[in-house]
Amino acid sequence: MTERLKKQMEFIIEVDKVKNIYRQTYLADGRRKENDAEHSWHLALMAVLLKEYANEEIDLSKVVTMVLIHDLVEIDAGDSYAYDEAAAATKEEREKKAADRIFGILPADQGRMMRGLWEEFEAYETPEAKYAHMLDNSQPLFLNDASDGKSWTEHQVKKSQIYKRNQYTGEGSREIWEYMQELIDKHVQRGHVIDDMSYDPKS
Amino acid sequence: MTERLKKQMEFIIEVDKVKNIYRQTYLADGRRKENDAEHSWHLALMAVLLKEYANEEIDLSKVVTMVLIHDLVEIDAGDSYAYDEAAAATKEEREKKAADRIFGILPADQGRMMRGLWEEFEAYETPEAKYAHMLDNSQPLFLNDASDGKSWTEHQVKKSQIYKRNQYTGEGSREIWEYMQELIDKHVQRGHVIDDMSYDPKS
Repeated sequence: MTERLKKQMEFIIEVDKVKNIYRQTYLADGRRKENDAEHSWHLALMAVLLKEYANEEIDLSKVVTMVLIHDLVEIDAGDSYAYDEAAAATKEEREKKAADRIFGILPADQGRMMRGLWEEFEAYETPEAKYAHMLDNSQPLFLNDASDGKSWTEHQVKKSQIYKRNQYTGEGSREIWEYMQELIDKHVQRGHVIDDMSYDPKS
Repeated sequence: MTERLKKQMEFIIEVDKVKNIYRQTYLADGRRKENDAEHSWHLALMAVLLKEYANEEIDLSKVVTMVLIHDLVEIDAGDSYAYDEAAAATKEEREKKAADRIFGILPADQGRMMRGLWEEFEAYETPEAKYAHMLDNSQPLFLNDASDGKSWTEHQVKKSQIYKRNQYTGEGSREIWEYMQELIDKHVQRGHVIDDMSYDPKS
């Protein structure tokens, strides 16, 4: 066994830990929350299926690898719930340290490649990063819709929070963002999302 | 919302069910078994990392999509444990019916593409299918190694069964198959895999 394969195998076993990092989103059937490995698998498959809705030309294989590894830093840094502001404050530093350690397990060339993709995702600037973020933001919304808003209801999520989180989602795909807005409105009407964005003539 | 996006969304929610299809392999930490979504995520990432060990030139993005969808048929057909011969007898028919229904949810062009990739995987003939099978066979072995042979011990697996299942694994990657053989020997020595292939001068 070469030194190189040894490092690759160590990484392959290390990343198994994301299967135990649970998110706040429930599976479509609402019976349990999903973990980062399941979430990343779902995003990778969606990347292939929804490519035609990307606003710009994208390198699909780059996006797929990006979404496969985008949450690996949570092995050390943990999952920060989208609407948890206290966690958000320290998230960047925790995740950078995690990236140093985790991508550092790989042979240098592969570590640089993976780290580069993770940084590109975080920077949210390239067409691939924008499309990947659209997937990352829409998938929990689709699951929330399927589970009749279970996670939104539990966390008393406000419409303005969802819109703030998705302020750039339309840059990845206008069409998918339009569809997401329809879903958000449906769940505002059903009382699963708190409507704090409507004009109230009495207030 | 177009008819096309409606079909794509129905598929995206339908395939969420593989997150509840549990396999016989334990996670690396040995604490619970893994499911098909987690397994498929792991394979997709391994496909990227181990490409240099493929015996032949491969189209990586094709392999990645192939492994992302290779177990979707188990939503209807269930997981057939690698060493369960009774299940194997009816597996093909059950899985073909499942493929008809599940890939049939997609718009026709995407359904054909996904179905084609699944059939290519099952046929085990192209360089991509051989490499994908190597991943599919090696990943549970790597997890078994990490969990100190937990699933092998529980199922009293024989060395000949592992070799039979892996009779073509070397066609995907000679180097990874060599490493797998080292691991199998280690677990035979530790008594986790029953050695029914050694020559016994007393028998």
